[in-house]
Amino acid sequence: MSSNPKTDIENRPYSRNVPDRVLIANRGEIAIRIIQACRELGIDAIAVYSDTDETAKHVRLADDAYHIGSSVARESYLDQDAIIEAAREADADAIHPGYGFLAENTEFAANVEDSDFNWIGPPSDVMAEFGEKTKARRIMDRADVPIVPGTTDPVESADEVREFADEHGYPVAIKADGGGGGRGLKVVRSEADIADQFADAKREGEAYFDNANVYVERFLENPRHIEVQILGDEHGTVRHLGERDCSTQRRQQKLIEETPSPVLDDETREEICEAARRGADEAGYVNAGTFEFLYEDGEFFFLEVNARIQVEHAITEAVTGIDIVKWQIRIADGEELSFPQSAVEPRGAAIEFRINAEKPADDFSPMPGELTTYRPPTGIGTRVDDAVNQGDRVPPFYDSMFAKFIVSGEDRHEAIRRGRRALAETTIEGVPTTIPFHEQMLADERFLNAEHTTKFVDEELDIERSE
Amino acid sequence: MSSNPKTDIENRPYSRNVPDRVLIANRGEIAIRIIQACRELGIDAIAVYSDTDETAKHVRLADDAYHIGSSVARESYLDQDAIIEAAREADADAIHPGYGFLAENTEFAANVEDSDFNWIGPPSDVMAEFGEKTKARRIMDRADVPIVPGTTDPVESADEVREFADEHGYPVAIKADGGGGGRGLKVVRSEADIADQFADAKREGEAYFDNANVYVERFLENPRHIEVQILGDEHGTVRHLGERDCSTQRRQQKLIEETPSPVLDDETREEICEAARRGADEAGYVNAGTFEFLYEDGEFFFLEVNARIQVEHAITEAVTGIDIVKWQIRIADGEELSFPQSAVEPRGAAIEFRINAEKPADDFSPMPGELTTYRPPTGIGTRVDDAVNQGDRVPPFYDSMFAKFIVSGEDRHEAIRRGRRALAETTIEGVPTTIPFHEQMLADERFLNAEHTTKFVDEELDIERSE
Repeated sequence: MSSNPKTDIENRPYSRNVPDRVLIANRGEIAIRIIQACRELGIDAIAVYSDTDETAKHVRLADDAYHIGSSVARESYLDQDAIIEAAREADADAIHPGYGFLAENTEFAANVEDSDFNWIGPPSDVMAEFGEKTKARRIMDRADVPIVPGTTDPVESADEVREFADEHGYPVAIKADGGGGGRGLKVVRSEADIADQFADAKREGEAYFDNANVYVERFLENPRHIEVQILGDEHGTVRHLGERDCSTQRRQQKLIEETPSPVLDDETREEICEAARRGADEAGYVNAGTFEFLYEDGEFFFLEVNARIQVEHAITEAVTGIDIVKWQIRIADGEELSFPQSAVEPRGAAIEFRINAEKPADDFSPMPGELTTYRPPTGIGTRVDDAVNQGDRVPPFYDSMFAKFIVSGEDRHEAIRRGRRALAETTIEGVPTTIPFHEQMLADERFLNAEHTTKFVDEELDIERSE
Repeated sequence: MSSNPKTDIENRPYSRNVPDRVLIANRGEIAIRIIQACRELGIDAIAVYSDTDETAKHVRLADDAYHIGSSVARESYLDQDAIIEAAREADADAIHPGYGFLAENTEFAANVEDSDFNWIGPPSDVMAEFGEKTKARRIMDRADVPIVPGTTDPVESADEVREFADEHGYPVAIKADGGGGGRGLKVVRSEADIADQFADAKREGEAYFDNANVYVERFLENPRHIEVQILGDEHGTVRHLGERDCSTQRRQQKLIEETPSPVLDDETREEICEAARRGADEAGYVNAGTFEFLYEDGEFFFLEVNARIQVEHAITEAVTGIDIVKWQIRIADGEELSFPQSAVEPRGAAIEFRINAEKPADDFSPMPGELTTYRPPTGIGTRVDDAVNQGDRVPPFYDSMFAKFIVSGEDRHEAIRRGRRALAETTIEGVPTTIPFHEQMLADERFLNAEHTTKFVDEELDIERSE
């Protein structure tokens, strides 16, 4: 037996010098996901928490935790100063924003950078480029990525909108330059509406995003949502990790995501993934990001970039075996992406079900409360990412999602059957959940045949009452 | 939208005609594993239970459950008539024995076959061939598989043992023909001991296995335990699913298993896997089985076949993506193995930790009791197969293992770090567990450098007290 006290495994670094302590500026399942990544890298994970989260699972699992304010998000998880102060107190080296809250706030990213903490995400200047949609469209255009026909510069008047519609036909979308998630989006179906909708879009852009610029696009009536996971390092290397299909949405909120997309043939899949990679390359993209596309009638068009980790990253991890969150930390530390594109070989299929404390049959209304029973699924091909243990509460102040169940299998067929099995063996009492909705989808022939688009849940599905 | 009520997914059968109802002649995590496989195949899973298991998790999750006797195993899980009677009452088509209990009982397998239930395992005549170790050795010898130098026929006298030892040197092992798991095994270190040990081995063979035949082998002092997962169908196709390294054992009970083996180079890995496949082919092996080998000083030798599913099958599933238990059911139903050997491409590394209600520092003594807190790990690369929910009891009547945590990663390095993370985030209260032992192993340089053999835990490790 060797008497060398330093073992091979300890001597094999992930990176030149990963940070020692990472502060996680978030809560819930993504905070726990990041804690797990830190643990596996040998890094201390520091939680922050609001009043209501004092005993939350992410606090219990962290190495250290700092109270940052009241239960209202703007006085805690959105309070930039409180978070940076906590990072100072905790002697953190880096800050991971997760998703939501401050994750896509360019100003916060810049503040973190200026405060000499490592920002675990795209550098603030890269975020800024993709924050303005017309800039993003210009980058994609340069990279020869298909964009929805439209303007790459802001439009100055209702007349310009009319000219565009005359050329491309109705409906057209007027979109706020700083917008996203449906805010500042107006769909114009006839010439008579142009003036009003133009003014409304500008007003919403000003109000929500502090940016009254708007641009115009052809409006796709019934697209699928397909997105590509990107990783880029500081040394100019960009890799894609394949695509995800997130067409099961309610009012633009994703509910089920899967990979591979069941509607793409191999050629189109390669094209869309390569398009995203080219776009990321053109932008000098660094860290993890998602390039979103709309897909309709065999054509795909760039939509926008989410310059952060996404809820649904786990399905990509399931099929590629690549730990995206660990790579976020390694990249932020300067490490090079060590694998060639050819080493990214997705295997099988994976589906994610978002488990929200909501009543699907009652317009998905949030129903926070105590999880008197919480028995998530187990077994083969079944990953659980959650924010709770039995007896915990889902508080009313934040997103109602408290768990994600990710199933994977040899193909979509097996993943769907595994999903049914996993959902059926789950027992949750105390709050209603989206599980009955997921079970309905997994029994619906339109989902099974992959005929559903982003409009399906809102416009075609009769949500069954589970009681 | 299509109005066809039969969807593609429903119309795509796994098999010609999978059974409708499978009775599971077992308990604990393996019963639940089989229930999950049945669910994913659209088959009803029928549980059986003893008095103490009336409200056990495997009963809660099954579609139907039958009481078969008292808490003492021989009056319930080992009661062949009670189980066959339950299968009749339940209108079952097939019986899955799991592992342990009756899984390797050739007589029970034959009874099941005679009772017109499908036996989900190797046919009883295949089991019989491997049940007698000298027969198994002859099969392997014909298939050109290295066997430990020794006799392929029973030895008739102490003199024959002496002749063998004179030729091959001491120590030699005298083994009961029907034996396994250390019973009926005598190690002879000098000529003076031969007569007594020969008599003892015969007596134990007679007592435990109703078979006084013994044979002789060269005894390997300090081997690693390496085994190969095999699947064979009724049509003559045999595939291997790669190897597992189960060298972390306490008194021949495995505690940690991993794949790939950290000590094999690619050439030896291919050789050992192909040797197992040849042996299975020669035997006309059907269903799942494990071909076990000893490995020492760069040489491997066939040890024995476990003609059943094994506890550690899950690590093979983790790296291959192949659902072994579903294949057991499909093969028993006559389905052909549809994938070529070249499609079996293990990816990354996986490690299984057996979570037993035991006190490792107190000679691993079983400590049954109530799990007042049970929070297993979650997240990326972390599979939990368990027999309990919080509040359940680990009864004193059976095996003390109540959960398995299986971690997988890009390589052994990541799997080990993930294992540490998963074990650290687990909270179990009410019974002591093997978790402190696993954590000690994951910190031990000899394990990290893969220098440990099957003797390591018994002879070299100082088990740390966790209190």
